[in-house]
Amino acid sequence: MRNPDERFMAECLKIAKKGAGYVSPNPLVGCLIVKDGKVIGKGFHRAFGESHAEVNAVEDAKRNGFDLEGATVYVNLEPCSHRGNTGPCAVLLKNEMPDKVVIGMQDPYEKVNGKGIKILKQAGIKVVEGVLQKECREFNKFFVNFVTKKRPFVTLKIAQSIDGKIALNNKDSKYITSESSRKIVHKMRSEFDAVLIGTNTAMLDNPKLDARLTKGRTPFRFVIDRDLRLPEHLEIFNDENADRTIIISSVKAIAGKRNISVRKIPVKQTHGRFSISDILNSLYEENISSIIVEGGMNLFSQFLNTGLYDDVFFFIAPKIIGSGISAFDDASIKNLSSAHELCLIDQKTIDNELILHYENVHRHS
Amino acid sequence: MRNPDERFMAECLKIAKKGAGYVSPNPLVGCLIVKDGKVIGKGFHRAFGESHAEVNAVEDAKRNGFDLEGATVYVNLEPCSHRGNTGPCAVLLKNEMPDKVVIGMQDPYEKVNGKGIKILKQAGIKVVEGVLQKECREFNKFFVNFVTKKRPFVTLKIAQSIDGKIALNNKDSKYITSESSRKIVHKMRSEFDAVLIGTNTAMLDNPKLDARLTKGRTPFRFVIDRDLRLPEHLEIFNDENADRTIIISSVKAIAGKRNISVRKIPVKQTHGRFSISDILNSLYEENISSIIVEGGMNLFSQFLNTGLYDDVFFFIAPKIIGSGISAFDDASIKNLSSAHELCLIDQKTIDNELILHYENVHRHS
Repeated sequence: MRNPDERFMAECLKIAKKGAGYVSPNPLVGCLIVKDGKVIGKGFHRAFGESHAEVNAVEDAKRNGFDLEGATVYVNLEPCSHRGNTGPCAVLLKNEMPDKVVIGMQDPYEKVNGKGIKILKQAGIKVVEGVLQKECREFNKFFVNFVTKKRPFVTLKIAQSIDGKIALNNKDSKYITSESSRKIVHKMRSEFDAVLIGTNTAMLDNPKLDARLTKGRTPFRFVIDRDLRLPEHLEIFNDENADRTIIISSVKAIAGKRNISVRKIPVKQTHGRFSISDILNSLYEENISSIIVEGGMNLFSQFLNTGLYDDVFFFIAPKIIGSGISAFDDASIKNLSSAHELCLIDQKTIDNELILHYENVHRHS
Repeated sequence: MRNPDERFMAECLKIAKKGAGYVSPNPLVGCLIVKDGKVIGKGFHRAFGESHAEVNAVEDAKRNGFDLEGATVYVNLEPCSHRGNTGPCAVLLKNEMPDKVVIGMQDPYEKVNGKGIKILKQAGIKVVEGVLQKECREFNKFFVNFVTKKRPFVTLKIAQSIDGKIALNNKDSKYITSESSRKIVHKMRSEFDAVLIGTNTAMLDNPKLDARLTKGRTPFRFVIDRDLRLPEHLEIFNDENADRTIIISSVKAIAGKRNISVRKIPVKQTHGRFSISDILNSLYEENISSIIVEGGMNLFSQFLNTGLYDDVFFFIAPKIIGSGISAFDDASIKNLSSAHELCLIDQKTIDNELILHYENVHRHS
């Protein structure tokens, strides 16, 4: 059973979740103000550039006719000490003088990193740290990863048959999984900043990579096209979200051809190839805190090989394809003990299909 | 909630299960005798050739000082009308005159097939049929399949990485899955009549195919070796269960070389190959009612291709291997809608590994 602090913290996460897909690269934050066991104000960070959860919660409490004297503030992330819009949140709370501030986790962002807590403590406010800490860190894994590793959180998403085929030998891969599974993928897309695909996948599948099966927004759609050889007619260059399509290309190609009007960002080549770490670096500079890699085999294999991935989602259709194309073509494994290990952290069944959520065993290191 | 009849029938299955691995090709049968809501006798079919469940239950009731007057007999399969040892069970029950006989399922074996029920009814005994019928049929799926399809029940067992590889390119496949998963395989082996493997698997893996990780008995071990080219030193030819190893070979090879002392059975060749249906036919003639096919790729692919399989168990290790050998190499699928469909009927997680039990969607047709 959870104690009251934990219950209120869980509620913070619940309301914070409403910002998913809109706050990046900021964290998801929810804030509750509680007096005599009752919630007198609440707020969450709605979108990047808009006011922080604490500001919204304090305003809500005031609108409800309360001040913060004797109140406890619950917030899943340390209040900031550095932002200017409405003043840093730690200063805001200091001025409102609640009795206590209960915090899920310290903010790992280098400009905060304990400074917000210090402001509160120095003002004589009681601070309780680390309530549901593990859950709070996991909840904001995109943000935590972004500020600590300085690269987007990388999820590989693989739709395959039970015998591990992502496409037939004739490249047909539409659709291995059911609409119910694809709905879940669309929901994921609506919460991730971006989707990334390779040139072959763009060419062969001509995907839309949007969130049309749910009500969410379409993610940025990054497509690798080193030599700008993708045809102009592709969906992602022409649909209603074409302004959210970005081509990752070489400096040289971008300087040359200009046939496709979508944005292009240059990545340097090493031995005629892009490295995954250079691509991730470019995405980081674009403030992309989370990506879903959606194929194909070459791109999956490069991510696998570099170890630069965090989660792997397998959507497994109840089918046997036999001869076909697998998700990975990494031939570096010479004995079973050196295979890439994953940790199974969640599984669901929907319409006879399995959704398996694995973590890179090195994700937390 | 189950009603009393269903609860007693479930109890019959529970005690019948103790015969698993020993009664084949007979069915698993448990019998309860109930008077005034209390069990006064019970029995099960312990082993092929030994007395039937009904005989054991009646003897047990008598040993306990009861007769069957006014009693209800529960038995998961229709009492037989044809066996001679202690007389057919339907006749035995008729002579004991219980009030009522509650039966899980009619015996599909052509020599019974309702005749046992008829004997009881004609004697004026009340008969209730079909209690937990679906469960009873599933419970005796080996037997039901054996007498209706006249071939063994075929389970394909595949241990693979999450990306669908059963071995590295260098053929290494020992061990993809954990000891906990292998324990479950050994338990399965102890309840199946036989294991079947191809020549390459015997040669490369040199497996023991026994049940050493559990307390069960070793199954018969059938190995395909058309030209009798397998080396004499293999485990299955020399271990303590060598008398349970049988080579499936060609008529010609058997007439020739005699270097290996284990039993050999001939199967005819068509265009220089064995057909799966001929192999299954030979196993049927050997009274094998259930087999686990344990590889390799060629054998799996042939079973897949002919559709002559009932269950598929995937043991999925939380590993990505990348380039390697897949379970199936069937290149007949030209579009996704014609992929081999399975039905996911059960799943378990053990030590980060998944055990997925699928059924051939055509199994019940």
